[in-house]
Amino acid sequence: MSKKSVALSGVAAGNTAICTVGQSGNDLHYRGYSIGELAQRGTYEETAHLLIYGELPTRVELDDYLRRLAAYRRLPAEVCDALELIPAASHPMDVLRTGCSVLGALEPEGPARGSAGARVLGDRLLVSFTSMLLYWHHFSLEGRRIETATDEPSLAGHFLRLLHGRTAPAAHIRALDRALILYAEHEFNASTFAARVIAGTGSDLHSAVCGAIGALRGPKHGGANEVAIEIALRYPTAAAAEADIRARVSAGEIIIGFGHPVYTISDPRNIIIKEIARVLCADGGAPGLFAVCERIEDVMRDMKRMFPNLDWYSAPAFRMLGIPTPMFTPVFAVARTAGWTAHVVEQRLDGKIIRPGANYTGPAPRPFVPIAER
Amino acid sequence: MSKKSVALSGVAAGNTAICTVGQSGNDLHYRGYSIGELAQRGTYEETAHLLIYGELPTRVELDDYLRRLAAYRRLPAEVCDALELIPAASHPMDVLRTGCSVLGALEPEGPARGSAGARVLGDRLLVSFTSMLLYWHHFSLEGRRIETATDEPSLAGHFLRLLHGRTAPAAHIRALDRALILYAEHEFNASTFAARVIAGTGSDLHSAVCGAIGALRGPKHGGANEVAIEIALRYPTAAAAEADIRARVSAGEIIIGFGHPVYTISDPRNIIIKEIARVLCADGGAPGLFAVCERIEDVMRDMKRMFPNLDWYSAPAFRMLGIPTPMFTPVFAVARTAGWTAHVVEQRLDGKIIRPGANYTGPAPRPFVPIAER
Repeated sequence: MSKKSVALSGVAAGNTAICTVGQSGNDLHYRGYSIGELAQRGTYEETAHLLIYGELPTRVELDDYLRRLAAYRRLPAEVCDALELIPAASHPMDVLRTGCSVLGALEPEGPARGSAGARVLGDRLLVSFTSMLLYWHHFSLEGRRIETATDEPSLAGHFLRLLHGRTAPAAHIRALDRALILYAEHEFNASTFAARVIAGTGSDLHSAVCGAIGALRGPKHGGANEVAIEIALRYPTAAAAEADIRARVSAGEIIIGFGHPVYTISDPRNIIIKEIARVLCADGGAPGLFAVCERIEDVMRDMKRMFPNLDWYSAPAFRMLGIPTPMFTPVFAVARTAGWTAHVVEQRLDGKIIRPGANYTGPAPRPFVPIAER
Repeated sequence: MSKKSVALSGVAAGNTAICTVGQSGNDLHYRGYSIGELAQRGTYEETAHLLIYGELPTRVELDDYLRRLAAYRRLPAEVCDALELIPAASHPMDVLRTGCSVLGALEPEGPARGSAGARVLGDRLLVSFTSMLLYWHHFSLEGRRIETATDEPSLAGHFLRLLHGRTAPAAHIRALDRALILYAEHEFNASTFAARVIAGTGSDLHSAVCGAIGALRGPKHGGANEVAIEIALRYPTAAAAEADIRARVSAGEIIIGFGHPVYTISDPRNIIIKEIARVLCADGGAPGLFAVCERIEDVMRDMKRMFPNLDWYSAPAFRMLGIPTPMFTPVFAVARTAGWTAHVVEQRLDGKIIRPGANYTGPAPRPFVPIAER
């Protein structure tokens, strides 16, 4: 994505203590911790606590947090009823947006709009989203009303259990857990910025997250990992991929999953998700899928000096976890709800409404013309 | 509202041909037409056509447009079912946000995301919102399922008919029609900007409008007219209002309904809505309510050199039309859907993702600490 296609690029729209992106060209820190260390040594729940509450939890805090999150897995009956109204052909991001809106009508944030309340509602949302997504999935496809409360220790485990109906292998749960860490936060990206614009008017957390889901739904933002898997699945072999991608790039086609509006050298999340994808493809009997992705990476570096972003290798990783392609962006949304919540809290403390100006390019003042004379 | 409380104030976030706000300090133009002329001589439907389609309609175009809008009044059964799940105590803006999201899941914009499709969906939404709001209102309060299709010629008449169950007096319909014109558009205000941020990722119209509703819901944005009526209704007489408001202003209290982040001299919509409120209060047997509002206007000019904005006299006008206070912001949302739709179409043509930067104020890079050592 070129700088020219980004409005407000490099213009500071506010202050944040949550995240730095690409300060050295290829680094990412959540509240000072490098993404590499968090993804290797932390869990998604520790990361969510860091983002939403400001610090990594102690053992006692984490145990309490895990208990609290687990209790949020059951959905109100009215939310389930609303999810049942949404047809199977709908976009799953429309499902999350609707579920978020209904939950906000049923369990509204009070008029006080403090930080503590928003944090708890954010926790509730990020857990509820997995339950909503998979309740709707099974109901709309099979007419089956699943029980959304599980005894899985982690959110990643909960998601895979609801998806597949059984506890996933530990390696799969940890792979998804690490992917959630990578997707949890990314400073003033478009969906987070939408959430901050909404929060800036003093609005509630659910409204801000509905807006963020809507922004993430766009193909230029969260939709990229879904396109990436379609590209990778086109090719039976790495050689076929190379030949076709060379031809497409020569013809001027943009290949989704490469380059980034902020990172200049590489995406620091790529090295982590690539290794996850490599292991999942090897163990899952699909080394060819990984080989196709890696070959396209080589071609893009050779021809365009472009690097893969997080979405490129997330795509084969999610596929190997048995996640249906239309759920790739919703998984991103589940993870990012931690970042969105943290930013809503921060925008409120900042106390500003976000109201930019515009360059006017329209007609000069003109007199009204009565309808009979038009 | 002081400039300091506004982020990105005066920073151009894009181009627009739709609207200019306060270029001379107290003027407002929709596509070159002054708000005064539009509100005196035009209708809301002509204004919506101007905003969404770019020009005032000819007689033939308007007749066709009115026929099309009228056909959108009936809601899909699933939308009614979803509205019935929302309790009477919910905020009506949560109702519109949810109705918008459900309608987007049922009648989604296709992946093409062209201008023509978005315009039609915007027309559908602005009409549906009146039907959704009043269907939910009667069902949640009285358990009554109303027929939302009416034969009223205008949207304003349709709204008052569904609210009161009978055709409203012509003067009431025209008063609401003119208020809708005043609320229809206001450049890059926070809700419209939220819609543009969401549209910038290539997302669908329903997602953008859900985000806009969420932003408008905030007390610093659309919620102001609801606070204004609470203030005006506190006082039995103009003298009582003057004494109390003087005391409150002296004590540093901010009086909602006065001042504006963009206008510096006056709000050009005030002269129009004030006359509407004066006539409605006089004819409706409540000249005292108008007198209270006018006296507070005088006090604010005298003490703070502040002028009333659109919300101040909209409050008594809406009250005299029999609109319940919690519906004041939803009426604003119905009107503004025309502006939101126009801006979504324009943002798409611009083709840019909106992704600002941020000032980092958080911790410096720090090493990960294992949980046992925290």
